[in-house]
Amino acid sequence: MTIPHVWQQPAALRQAIRRGDFRHHTAGQAPGHAQGNLAILPRDYADEFLRFCRLNPKACPVIGMSEPGAPAVPELGEDIDLRSDVPAYCVFRDGELVEEVTDLRALWRDDLVGFVLGCSLSFEAALLDARVPVRHIENDHPVPMYNTSIANRPAGRFGGNMVVSMRPMSTAQAIRAIQVTSRFPAVHGAPVHFGNPAEIGIADIGKPDYGMPVEIRRGEVPVFWACGVTPQQAIRVARPPLALTHKPGYMLVADVRNSELAAF
Amino acid sequence: MTIPHVWQQPAALRQAIRRGDFRHHTAGQAPGHAQGNLAILPRDYADEFLRFCRLNPKACPVIGMSEPGAPAVPELGEDIDLRSDVPAYCVFRDGELVEEVTDLRALWRDDLVGFVLGCSLSFEAALLDARVPVRHIENDHPVPMYNTSIANRPAGRFGGNMVVSMRPMSTAQAIRAIQVTSRFPAVHGAPVHFGNPAEIGIADIGKPDYGMPVEIRRGEVPVFWACGVTPQQAIRVARPPLALTHKPGYMLVADVRNSELAAF
Repeated sequence: MTIPHVWQQPAALRQAIRRGDFRHHTAGQAPGHAQGNLAILPRDYADEFLRFCRLNPKACPVIGMSEPGAPAVPELGEDIDLRSDVPAYCVFRDGELVEEVTDLRALWRDDLVGFVLGCSLSFEAALLDARVPVRHIENDHPVPMYNTSIANRPAGRFGGNMVVSMRPMSTAQAIRAIQVTSRFPAVHGAPVHFGNPAEIGIADIGKPDYGMPVEIRRGEVPVFWACGVTPQQAIRVARPPLALTHKPGYMLVADVRNSELAAF
Repeated sequence: MTIPHVWQQPAALRQAIRRGDFRHHTAGQAPGHAQGNLAILPRDYADEFLRFCRLNPKACPVIGMSEPGAPAVPELGEDIDLRSDVPAYCVFRDGELVEEVTDLRALWRDDLVGFVLGCSLSFEAALLDARVPVRHIENDHPVPMYNTSIANRPAGRFGGNMVVSMRPMSTAQAIRAIQVTSRFPAVHGAPVHFGNPAEIGIADIGKPDYGMPVEIRRGEVPVFWACGVTPQQAIRVARPPLALTHKPGYMLVADVRNSELAAF
């Protein structure tokens, strides 16, 4: 796999994506800047989805929203166009993934509302800064993600189970990682679980449902954070006629810095 | 075992101790107030010991110090008398525990310096407040404590290994407990380890070196904090001609509230 150029500036990265020059996952890109999960829904589902996010803030922390029909999210970056600034999108019809695309312009409608949700990728710079190694970045892989048995709190038609991301580390690093990520409730905050994957319904830690597996070394413990892929599970349950999301690992990179999202 | 009266006011508890009316361990007493580990050393050891504490702040967070020869620690309570206000003391000669006493007046000398170190007992009110159950309080036992293989950073004649306290809890509670105790670096702060006791040199979790064992239930993980009994190990190594400490679990209860010791 070719290791892509690391873009320092989010706006330059988004322009490269918009031009079609960058189709890689975004882990490690624009270090220090918030990366967002994207969910775009028709207006008559959007109000319910916002309630769903409020009830499930660890999995679905809303850091940006668009006005109906407008693909802009100025609070996250002046020039953001949700239709073109993410390297890969998923298209769901009636709750089923039907295709992956690299541009939403042909699918855009005047009643669509975009939600940008904080993402675990964006606290990883803070972990690295605290000398907590992040293996999937070392491997240049997307983070491994898993469906779980943890039920989301339902809102209207939205429900389903939580999706988590996993990072293996020593117990001392896990304690430090809990401290570091607790500062960032807007990007999933503290872990939801560590240790035995079976306790949260993960049958085989070596087979993630999204992303790629990482090695868990002797003496290491898997640490699980709520993941912004959770809304995609909620969409499968709600079955809206159309829903557009990012492809897991291929995120919207915002101008906002992670440090601006820190609670203290 | 008779469950003693729970004193709400630290000064009233200290007076009861001074009168000889309270000889119980202090877990659960004067809720919300800081409890301290005590180490009293001859002046020519005290400077080295202060350096030892600075190098090992998780085990030995100094929250109060006396002037040489004076048994008062006004920063922790106006009327504190280190010679009489702790329910039980240990007397070490040449690094060996030679007796337990309930009063230090007969042993006091003009060159003695007292150190009060923050204690894990004192963050337990914050854990309970966060709905993290603390089993040894439920059992009315002193917390189980263990010698470990974690080497202290040595200073002069002081060294030895860290002593830890242990509380079993679910993983979700452990994550919350790490958050809660991180706010309190002056009372040991975040845990130093969780999970496998053997990794830090504990051979049998059912046999604590101090305090009493507690049940670890299915699905629970043991969580380990640095403990203020650590200086007693350091004293065994340094072998001062005289050293006086509290008996583990039988603490100095200060007027300072735990919330005043919170870092944020």
